[in-house]
Amino acid sequence: MEKLETYSRDEVADPAFAHMPDVVVKPASAEEISAIMRLANRELIPVTPRGAGSGLSGGAVPVYGGILLSVERMNRILEVDRDNLVIVVEPGVVTNTINEILKDDGLFYAGYPMSVETCFVGGNVAENAGGGKAIKYGVTGRYVMGLEVVLPTGEIVQFGGKLVKDVTGYNLLQLMVGSEGTLGIYTKIILKLLPLPTAKVDLLVLFEDVPSAIAMVPRIMTNGRIIPTAIEFMDKLSVQTTCRYLNEELPYEQAGAMLLIEVDGASEAQVEQESETIGELCLEHGALEVYVADNYTTQERVWSVRRSIAEAFKVYSPVQSLEDVVVPFAQIPDLMPELDRLSEKYDVVIPCYGHAGDGNLHATIVKHPHMPMDVWEAREPEVLRDLYDAVAKLGGTLSGEHGIGSKRRDFLPMMLDRTVIALQQRIKTAFDPLAVLNPGKIFPETL
Amino acid sequence: MEKLETYSRDEVADPAFAHMPDVVVKPASAEEISAIMRLANRELIPVTPRGAGSGLSGGAVPVYGGILLSVERMNRILEVDRDNLVIVVEPGVVTNTINEILKDDGLFYAGYPMSVETCFVGGNVAENAGGGKAIKYGVTGRYVMGLEVVLPTGEIVQFGGKLVKDVTGYNLLQLMVGSEGTLGIYTKIILKLLPLPTAKVDLLVLFEDVPSAIAMVPRIMTNGRIIPTAIEFMDKLSVQTTCRYLNEELPYEQAGAMLLIEVDGASEAQVEQESETIGELCLEHGALEVYVADNYTTQERVWSVRRSIAEAFKVYSPVQSLEDVVVPFAQIPDLMPELDRLSEKYDVVIPCYGHAGDGNLHATIVKHPHMPMDVWEAREPEVLRDLYDAVAKLGGTLSGEHGIGSKRRDFLPMMLDRTVIALQQRIKTAFDPLAVLNPGKIFPETL
Repeated sequence: MEKLETYSRDEVADPAFAHMPDVVVKPASAEEISAIMRLANRELIPVTPRGAGSGLSGGAVPVYGGILLSVERMNRILEVDRDNLVIVVEPGVVTNTINEILKDDGLFYAGYPMSVETCFVGGNVAENAGGGKAIKYGVTGRYVMGLEVVLPTGEIVQFGGKLVKDVTGYNLLQLMVGSEGTLGIYTKIILKLLPLPTAKVDLLVLFEDVPSAIAMVPRIMTNGRIIPTAIEFMDKLSVQTTCRYLNEELPYEQAGAMLLIEVDGASEAQVEQESETIGELCLEHGALEVYVADNYTTQERVWSVRRSIAEAFKVYSPVQSLEDVVVPFAQIPDLMPELDRLSEKYDVVIPCYGHAGDGNLHATIVKHPHMPMDVWEAREPEVLRDLYDAVAKLGGTLSGEHGIGSKRRDFLPMMLDRTVIALQQRIKTAFDPLAVLNPGKIFPETL
Repeated sequence: MEKLETYSRDEVADPAFAHMPDVVVKPASAEEISAIMRLANRELIPVTPRGAGSGLSGGAVPVYGGILLSVERMNRILEVDRDNLVIVVEPGVVTNTINEILKDDGLFYAGYPMSVETCFVGGNVAENAGGGKAIKYGVTGRYVMGLEVVLPTGEIVQFGGKLVKDVTGYNLLQLMVGSEGTLGIYTKIILKLLPLPTAKVDLLVLFEDVPSAIAMVPRIMTNGRIIPTAIEFMDKLSVQTTCRYLNEELPYEQAGAMLLIEVDGASEAQVEQESETIGELCLEHGALEVYVADNYTTQERVWSVRRSIAEAFKVYSPVQSLEDVVVPFAQIPDLMPELDRLSEKYDVVIPCYGHAGDGNLHATIVKHPHMPMDVWEAREPEVLRDLYDAVAKLGGTLSGEHGIGSKRRDFLPMMLDRTVIALQQRIKTAFDPLAVLNPGKIFPETL
């Protein structure tokens, strides 16, 4: 029972989203998965596929019980094809392993979710994981060239291949990416590789307010003609809480917002030049301070501020809802007053940080320690609805990288109209007529 | 009737693929298209959408007559959003217009089909057009952030938006891209923009044979740590016929293969450095000659060799089948002996050129002037079947960028298994239950 418990939840904090499986299976091949899916169709048993369990939307939680299918044993690197610049892996490979293996070849895989050291590449594909380097490198889907998939009905099929271009029929490959384990189970993943960048510089830039910080995003790309690797954003509350938590001595108190900007490339000189250009542009446009981190120690120091935000707020109060709304990035400043309004209206803390270059923000609704749990539980869905409503009005949507899963499914009709949801459900049925694969995800229960 | 004739064909050479529409309509809005689709569903009339007619797979040809829906009047630039780095256009905008408009803003749209001066962006999205810069910039789909679409059943819906990341439900946005006008008609297209590169250098590199040329592709990226903008490939036959046609004085006679390599970027110094690195790598690995084109005149000269290949062979014989097979790029040398074999077996000429960095090759089956037309007509499908068979054995597929359309639909079962084709047909039905939108495309007639 204790072992089953591990498979009843993912990284969503709220235990209400957990559910126990009836049985956990750990297949080692596509054929075994195919047999499981045929059984599931015959006996109408729900099957929920699971990677590392590091998801943030309840996608791998068996909400109707049944079979929990863990791909943890399917963790082999099947091929490194240096001539075609691709790697073929099983879904249970830890994402970071790929780059460990490739580093001596001068190659790298550019997918970079923040949980890179624990998550599985299969989960990254299922969620179309984003992360901090999407502005330059795009998200997981850009690197998925081919998939072997067991369909919900048990057939083993191939989508794509070692092909940079392919327009032979509909793009089912990219339909599979981000389908949250509801359209098939990946058994082989072909990933595109890039030349490994050998130089990087990070800039930590302090601004007086959010609009000045965000206005830099298009400016760096148009005036500076540079596409940075990352432009991470931290609001005042995130910066202050985290710097205090880390005993960080940066003069953060005066900063209304911070950007963490990274550039990488093949040449030290070029990266240095680009970081200088960006630093100067920031100073010209009202930056209070620009700190340059051009060695491992200082780079770790500035990134630790960014990476420790979630932790700092967990220490403050472990009861929270980590969101990943996305808006057109120039609209980030318009979202900030809305967060202040919500924070006051509902008496919650809402730090906001995330990927400024993508408009993808981890606005996190944090319960004050003083608020009783029953008040929080009643209030949380209201705050979320209010937040999503503000996001929708800015042309944004529910999730940039964490997925809908079970956590956000009831909010889907706020973002997609009925025709589009019905179309998506017909696609689900085209793949999974008996609805045995990962039921209870993406679509609202009421539909 | 003369006017209708224009709308009966695209750029496929063979008149057998042409078909007259019963009527041509030129709507000016999504609402008008919606009304047309509702009528078509009520009266069961086929509707075939059409862009510039520059397609190469018969995709815009009304093979069952009915309504030809041209988007030529929907050619407005709706918005240039410099803060979010996106442009919003109607489908009938000529692709090149976008960059003409943007050049003073320091921005550009990176989609670059070879027909950029005549094709419409709507057609580029429908075919997921590729072109010569895909190795660095990817293909059209990478830049499509949002679409307004009239569904086959007449509803007007939105997919995506001005959002860099979006995982809210299935990726219908990228399913629409490359759907060859069979799943919906685009009425607004939101495209992502990049900083305009200000410097470029082209290298024309001569090699003794195809394997030496192709081996450079991964080497440039791993040893050189450079992702070039383009690596275009021309075989001996393409080079010789075209250079003679152009009276080009390059010492082409000794070359068994040529690469045309382009690098671009924001700094002259960096681009110069990269082109030197690539040139040295090529010479170290057996290149016969490296010509550097670092100004407009010489760049035009080297690209004119590449761009004139199709023309040179049309002068030799206008009867031909232009293919765009794709293989893993390291397998290009394995395809060459197959082309020689086919050329001999069927007594046809098969120049081969294209996008080496993508493995996407325009092997073109050209009729000798001396071959009688009836012999050619009987033989052409056999050559194609034999070619596709060789491509499939190398892990390749039918089309990298031109699409399946009506021209290649009977060959689809050579590449996709029955389960996948059936799945694709169920998706088509989920969008278009009465099969009124662009019937007779992608799927074999016999299915």
